[in-house]
Amino acid sequence: MAKIVQCIPNFSEGRRPEVVEALVKTAQSIPGVALVDYSSDTSHNRSVFTLVGSVEGAEEAAFQLTKKAAELIDLRNHEGAHPRMGAVDVCPFVPIKDMTMEECVELAKRVAERIYNELGIPSFLYEEAATSDQRRNLATVRRGEFEGMNEKLLQDEWAPDYGERKVHPSAGIMAIGARMPLIAYNINLDTDDLSIAQKIARIVRSSTGGFKYCRAIGLMIEDRQIAQVSMNMINFEGTPLYRVFEVVKMEAARYGVNVLESEIIGITPAKALADSAQYYLQLNGFDYDKQVLENYLME
Amino acid sequence: MAKIVQCIPNFSEGRRPEVVEALVKTAQSIPGVALVDYSSDTSHNRSVFTLVGSVEGAEEAAFQLTKKAAELIDLRNHEGAHPRMGAVDVCPFVPIKDMTMEECVELAKRVAERIYNELGIPSFLYEEAATSDQRRNLATVRRGEFEGMNEKLLQDEWAPDYGERKVHPSAGIMAIGARMPLIAYNINLDTDDLSIAQKIARIVRSSTGGFKYCRAIGLMIEDRQIAQVSMNMINFEGTPLYRVFEVVKMEAARYGVNVLESEIIGITPAKALADSAQYYLQLNGFDYDKQVLENYLME
Repeated sequence: MAKIVQCIPNFSEGRRPEVVEALVKTAQSIPGVALVDYSSDTSHNRSVFTLVGSVEGAEEAAFQLTKKAAELIDLRNHEGAHPRMGAVDVCPFVPIKDMTMEECVELAKRVAERIYNELGIPSFLYEEAATSDQRRNLATVRRGEFEGMNEKLLQDEWAPDYGERKVHPSAGIMAIGARMPLIAYNINLDTDDLSIAQKIARIVRSSTGGFKYCRAIGLMIEDRQIAQVSMNMINFEGTPLYRVFEVVKMEAARYGVNVLESEIIGITPAKALADSAQYYLQLNGFDYDKQVLENYLME
Repeated sequence: MAKIVQCIPNFSEGRRPEVVEALVKTAQSIPGVALVDYSSDTSHNRSVFTLVGSVEGAEEAAFQLTKKAAELIDLRNHEGAHPRMGAVDVCPFVPIKDMTMEECVELAKRVAERIYNELGIPSFLYEEAATSDQRRNLATVRRGEFEGMNEKLLQDEWAPDYGERKVHPSAGIMAIGARMPLIAYNINLDTDDLSIAQKIARIVRSSTGGFKYCRAIGLMIEDRQIAQVSMNMINFEGTPLYRVFEVVKMEAARYGVNVLESEIIGITPAKALADSAQYYLQLNGFDYDKQVLENYLME
């Protein structure tokens, strides 16, 4: 069956609708990929696109979108709440079907090379594509942002992976990478006590001793006055949704707090839900690849 | 997005591998459909194929497979444990994506008409395509089987929906229909007491007061000496898997019996698993069509 890859470019523009529309048109004009979702945040001044399709389609889309963004976005005039260093700030590739992480890394490298050769925009490789441990983490790579980047690029350890030690004057520098699909997963608690959500977030997240592939914070949903454990599940096969859900429920119980509901924001692979169904239904011997109809229907 | 339909022809041949192989080759030669699964049963002397794809592909595949089966299978020499009345005995169409049941019924009628016009094989329409309530149930339609069918066709109420009151001499008569996807779902109990599985089957199945879209029997898995509630879920949206699973668990508990595991035999739509995940994860506000990645990847 055909290889399927996801591509999630993040653009440093969330306020001018005509620019976002031009990028949408560009995305929709590329054969072999579908624009699955896009959203803009005015306070962040940033837009996130989700594309999915063939390797060739995603490769072309990432390039053409970067070209269009470089024409329309000038980082010298950009301000917003979200840290950024490029017109296309980040562009991860995610293996969806019949594709290894290594193939995604190769794809990221081809795109980064073409973007520098044809558009003169340098880049760092990050996460699974990173060329050193220090470059895996996006926040570390981006530190200094657009304004501080020319200085940072001169430091011994911060030469770009593609391009010279100098950002593109208006389009800056990009982080291009490969990673597992990320699921934005929240669990709402029947309490207005933020500290309970924060304690539970510390329990389930990797950085403070929890599940390896879970990032979590506690926050308040102000208009409903309920506390939420807000999570990014960065590898749903390594840390499945049901396991985190059950632990959150278990930990909330010690405060006499119930789970109101959970929610997935944006896109999820069907398999992430199937994994949870298999757990709860005690569904043994199930072969997802062979037994799920939709696997035979992908392009 | 494109309409997707499933087609599950049942052939009256499960013993001659060369005949099954010829049918497989025919199925694989039709553009626009994939042969997802096939299995033969020698004691039943019957094979079941599962195809999925475009409306045009499924329509052509159903016709070409009937043509090939009529060339290779002669009901006058057929014996097996399973009731049958045609070389292709049954051929249901199932709406999978962006397709209504009405469109499936129309598809069934077009196929039935072409099969009679070009191959001279008559047919009954059954289940959702049935032209009277009496014809909805396959067992009722098939009663009399190949050997008794010419006599049955002369009865007032049993004229074929397509064709004259006379079976094809070697290929017999077919049931062509439309129905919801069927999931073969079993729950294994931690007991060797068959009567417990039988009692629970009566509780969950429609015919004895249970869930509308559940058919169930209790049986023994002889080699493991465990009792099983063996089910066909004939509309997983109307009667979801998790609801039946929880009731089986609840009813088994009164006998002090645990559920060992459940199993899905063959193919399931991903949505049937997602529905159960949504229940257990208390996943609210989830829009399956918009939020599941694979929905954007179907042909």
